[in-house]
Amino acid sequence: MDLVCLDLEGVLIPEIWIAFAKKTGIESLTATTRDIPDYNVLMRQRLNILADNNLSINDIQDVIATLEPMPGALTFLDQLRESYQVIILSDTFYEFGQSFMAQLNWPTLFCHKLEVDNKGMVTDYHLRQVDPKRNAVEALQKLNFRVFAAGDSYNDTTMLAAADKGFLFRAPQNVIAEFPQYSVTSEYDALRAFFDQASEE
Amino acid sequence: MDLVCLDLEGVLIPEIWIAFAKKTGIESLTATTRDIPDYNVLMRQRLNILADNNLSINDIQDVIATLEPMPGALTFLDQLRESYQVIILSDTFYEFGQSFMAQLNWPTLFCHKLEVDNKGMVTDYHLRQVDPKRNAVEALQKLNFRVFAAGDSYNDTTMLAAADKGFLFRAPQNVIAEFPQYSVTSEYDALRAFFDQASEE
Repeated sequence: MDLVCLDLEGVLIPEIWIAFAKKTGIESLTATTRDIPDYNVLMRQRLNILADNNLSINDIQDVIATLEPMPGALTFLDQLRESYQVIILSDTFYEFGQSFMAQLNWPTLFCHKLEVDNKGMVTDYHLRQVDPKRNAVEALQKLNFRVFAAGDSYNDTTMLAAADKGFLFRAPQNVIAEFPQYSVTSEYDALRAFFDQASEE
Repeated sequence: MDLVCLDLEGVLIPEIWIAFAKKTGIESLTATTRDIPDYNVLMRQRLNILADNNLSINDIQDVIATLEPMPGALTFLDQLRESYQVIILSDTFYEFGQSFMAQLNWPTLFCHKLEVDNKGMVTDYHLRQVDPKRNAVEALQKLNFRVFAAGDSYNDTTMLAAADKGFLFRAPQNVIAEFPQYSVTSEYDALRAFFDQASEE
């Protein structure tokens, strides 16, 4: 029985922090782990920026609600869910992913969680576990699912390695070069064909 | 992070074999494990009855497509998925559950699989694993989800026992009597309230 695990940002929706930064015009929020390699330092900076700009979780969600999935993502995902069980494995936070999930017809999402105080300010974040994507794939395999996976970035590569078959989707050149063992495409139709071919093997 | 595991038949949709038997008028398909305690003997009998009545998978799916989820089930599930990740754990087969999933907006379903020959006749069945509901709950807990679960029958009780909090929904009196440790309700609103209360603890 086949199950597909999909990364979220870069695969179905834009990078949330980048899109949010553009939408709000807060330049400093465009920093990523390329600029600040320590994820915890980066997240602390992001939460400080939100606080400095007096952005509550409601304000943030209102802005995120104006963002949209990538063109074609909804149709791809809807059709995929008719043939496979699909679980989205993401390093975003539920509070950010929510409005995208509404637009994507509420697929199952495994990600992380923010801590919000009684004024709605984001005070902390909780990662569900270390290496969550790999752990999820392995857990699903122990339930006797054959797992196919697709992602675009470094944080997806342990998931791709654990999966019975892994694919890169709209990955940057350095990731493609570093992980030549994974077939790569930038089109949803081709990704679907990859999954179907893997399923028939 | 909270996740809800729901049984399917008896909780969101009618018992498929019973409903299918009524719809087709094939009386002998109403037999359950109460009549034939050995599940494998029962399943062999069911597959023989399908073959005797020359029912292909397409015929079966056409009949099942005329069946509907229980009144209120769709609204309950839609709203539940806005607040919790939801995975349906069922002992049905994907080929039977499919049309119900379409009507329920494609929630994630973990169940079993039929084997169908090139004429569309059901020749065999494959259970994904032994004690699949308990195994799924435990796997999800290892991913650091807190798992709440609801079901109606004996095959749900190991899932309820493994869950952080388990509830009986529209369970028969003998199950309620035998498992007094689980709160019980027959209303979706009350079941939702059980989950919300568990989530706040």
